[in-house]
Amino acid sequence: MRMVDLIIKKRDGHELSDEEIRFWVNGYTKGEIPDYQSSAMQMAIVFRGMSKREVSTLTDAMEHSGEVLDLSMLKGVKVDKHSTGGVGDKTSLVLGPMVAACGATLAKLSGRGLGHTGGTLDKLESIPGVTIAIEGQRFVDQVNRIGCAIVGQTASLVPADKKMYALRDVTGTVESIPLIAASVMSKKLASGADTILLDVTVGEGAFMKNMDDARELANIMVEIGNRLGRDTRAVLSDMSEPLGKAVGNALEVKEAIAALHGEGPEDLMELCYTAGSIMLQQAKVFKTKEEGRKALVECIKNGKAFEKFCLMIEAQGGDLSYILHPEKFELAKHIVDVKAEQDGYVKELEALEIGVSSMKLGGGRETLEDVIDMSAGIMLNKKIGDYVKKGETLCTIHTNKPESEYLPIIEDIKHAYVIVKEKVEARPVIKEIIEK
Amino acid sequence: MRMVDLIIKKRDGHELSDEEIRFWVNGYTKGEIPDYQSSAMQMAIVFRGMSKREVSTLTDAMEHSGEVLDLSMLKGVKVDKHSTGGVGDKTSLVLGPMVAACGATLAKLSGRGLGHTGGTLDKLESIPGVTIAIEGQRFVDQVNRIGCAIVGQTASLVPADKKMYALRDVTGTVESIPLIAASVMSKKLASGADTILLDVTVGEGAFMKNMDDARELANIMVEIGNRLGRDTRAVLSDMSEPLGKAVGNALEVKEAIAALHGEGPEDLMELCYTAGSIMLQQAKVFKTKEEGRKALVECIKNGKAFEKFCLMIEAQGGDLSYILHPEKFELAKHIVDVKAEQDGYVKELEALEIGVSSMKLGGGRETLEDVIDMSAGIMLNKKIGDYVKKGETLCTIHTNKPESEYLPIIEDIKHAYVIVKEKVEARPVIKEIIEK
Repeated sequence: MRMVDLIIKKRDGHELSDEEIRFWVNGYTKGEIPDYQSSAMQMAIVFRGMSKREVSTLTDAMEHSGEVLDLSMLKGVKVDKHSTGGVGDKTSLVLGPMVAACGATLAKLSGRGLGHTGGTLDKLESIPGVTIAIEGQRFVDQVNRIGCAIVGQTASLVPADKKMYALRDVTGTVESIPLIAASVMSKKLASGADTILLDVTVGEGAFMKNMDDARELANIMVEIGNRLGRDTRAVLSDMSEPLGKAVGNALEVKEAIAALHGEGPEDLMELCYTAGSIMLQQAKVFKTKEEGRKALVECIKNGKAFEKFCLMIEAQGGDLSYILHPEKFELAKHIVDVKAEQDGYVKELEALEIGVSSMKLGGGRETLEDVIDMSAGIMLNKKIGDYVKKGETLCTIHTNKPESEYLPIIEDIKHAYVIVKEKVEARPVIKEIIEK
Repeated sequence: MRMVDLIIKKRDGHELSDEEIRFWVNGYTKGEIPDYQSSAMQMAIVFRGMSKREVSTLTDAMEHSGEVLDLSMLKGVKVDKHSTGGVGDKTSLVLGPMVAACGATLAKLSGRGLGHTGGTLDKLESIPGVTIAIEGQRFVDQVNRIGCAIVGQTASLVPADKKMYALRDVTGTVESIPLIAASVMSKKLASGADTILLDVTVGEGAFMKNMDDARELANIMVEIGNRLGRDTRAVLSDMSEPLGKAVGNALEVKEAIAALHGEGPEDLMELCYTAGSIMLQQAKVFKTKEEGRKALVECIKNGKAFEKFCLMIEAQGGDLSYILHPEKFELAKHIVDVKAEQDGYVKELEALEIGVSSMKLGGGRETLEDVIDMSAGIMLNKKIGDYVKKGETLCTIHTNKPESEYLPIIEDIKHAYVIVKEKVEARPVIKEIIEK
């Protein structure tokens, strides 16, 4: 079998056989197939797509390119949740303790942020002392005792995806639904959970810019997961504006803590309740989503979810005093209000622009080598549907960068807000639920 | 400027600016842009194509990636001719001396064969003593004295094409009309001739399988050449069956010698007369093609073309006794007839299959490192339109391979012949002429 013949086959619109897909993935992972052939294949896939069978085989080949976790020593049904990425998305920090408090087991492997999207691991690490490098028996003990852990991927998991993603990133082949689906699902499957809930974000701040693409991606992933033996479902959530009001690592942790105290922003809570009720149904803790939702609301009210969060942070080495007294988080040197220049309703609040601005303020990384300023970010005072008066604060930036650097960013942020005279409705965060 | 952004721009169907195309070609030639980005760009071009302006700039950038020959020290109008490749194509060996005999100057840089297509340099080298490494003053002197030379490309010519072609070959991006056009034209332009005649071959044995693609390629190349200041024209010629009757290096040289004696196969002679009359018009030797054709016929009859060929071979170090006594060429150990298994007319004689079979008999190379057996090849006794009786010889193979290797090849050759009951017309070799 020659790789060039497989590239030509895909280029000409034919389906690759299972054997051919495994030849590519295994050969590329081992370094026997060079980058330049893999990038040509990926570009051909961008144009030609893949059948469901092809994506399923690709996912399976990638999953088994390295270690596959066996979570059978953990008690209960292991649920997992994955977001395709967004701005201000601290859902895992809130939702993890919530479902654990209701009796599900969450043993989550998470990722770092890149570009305009944040990563859960970075957010966790803004809490002094927290480690995400928890492996082996310590991991098993933590999950069995507390019911939740959020840790980093081990290096041996899905090496094919690491190589392929890095290559896609520099060859213009990130935007391919089958390649995105295989990348996400191979990692989720290798992580060993029994059930998977996918949060497919939709809008300018997400990979998927429109509902058609998001629905296609969600459907493919749900199909792959179920085909490969896991109860897999998806919610499609809005990412045209950031989720919640905080964007930036420590700022988001503080918002997560507030949410666990019952003081979270409405969109974040709605996403947590909807996603959580599906996860509890997947875990067979409750038969119906209504029962699950009731339990989730209750665990916020009675403090059990917050308690789980504290236990998890403590187990992962974090300094609990920051969780109990969030005012201890060090603030950035410059905290500057961005004022509205006219009266009106917020019609757009571009998540992409806010994400990029937060990154430029120090809150994210452009390349994997960049160091994040945990205190940097943006607090949104006004979101879509809100009325604002001229001179009122739209949002507040937090940064340690000098004025010469943050002033142009403030201008960008102003452009992220579109303000109109006519009344605008707030956008529902849940757009669709996909179950097999 | 980042290469990944240019790949995405092309992937999404936008036109690249001149600056962007030069950034790619120059960066790739210098090794600053890696293979995996160039292959992704090439695959995006396979799908998205290029505008005439883009191909023209790509050609120009490739042409100037290395040395550009200045032929101004040569007398007269320098004409050049290029075939997009075929099976049994010994045209340059016959046509070069013919146009030189009629007063044009041919300073041709030629290539080697790969896969099922032969290369003029390999054919020349089957004549004992001939060198194709003629440079500098020796080259100038030969062309000024004799009017023709066929030599190898110097290593410093069009390095961008060498790198890009090698990459295309292993990444399934050979079959792209704009990339083929830029590859051919950058070499022709850098070779410094005043006029260019393109022989675009059409059919299963050629790059272009159908007339639409061939016409598109010819039109783009003619446009690029004229845009960049050279009188450029094209003929579209048939390559559904091999050209002439000989396939294989020494066999083709012997056929070329016969042709120069006025005993060439009809299709080869028609191509030489048609192409030659256009080249003589381009060289302004004659006003009309009719005058040129008359002169070409005459130079075969009076032996002037054969004389030019002898002078060229002698100047390039060749042993003239082989040209004067072609029976001196060493024959292969095994010369075996392939017999017809039924009566009928030859309807198809698949050039691709014949080219591949000749290669397998030892007459070509699969990889650039393979050594060619100069004596190996196939002599076609029957071509399309010919009537054949059961048991009559279709063709004869020449090979030094053992029987166990050549017997299966004979079976392949039998399949290359399609024989039917109904009368079949011979195919005209010239399908179309494209002039601006």
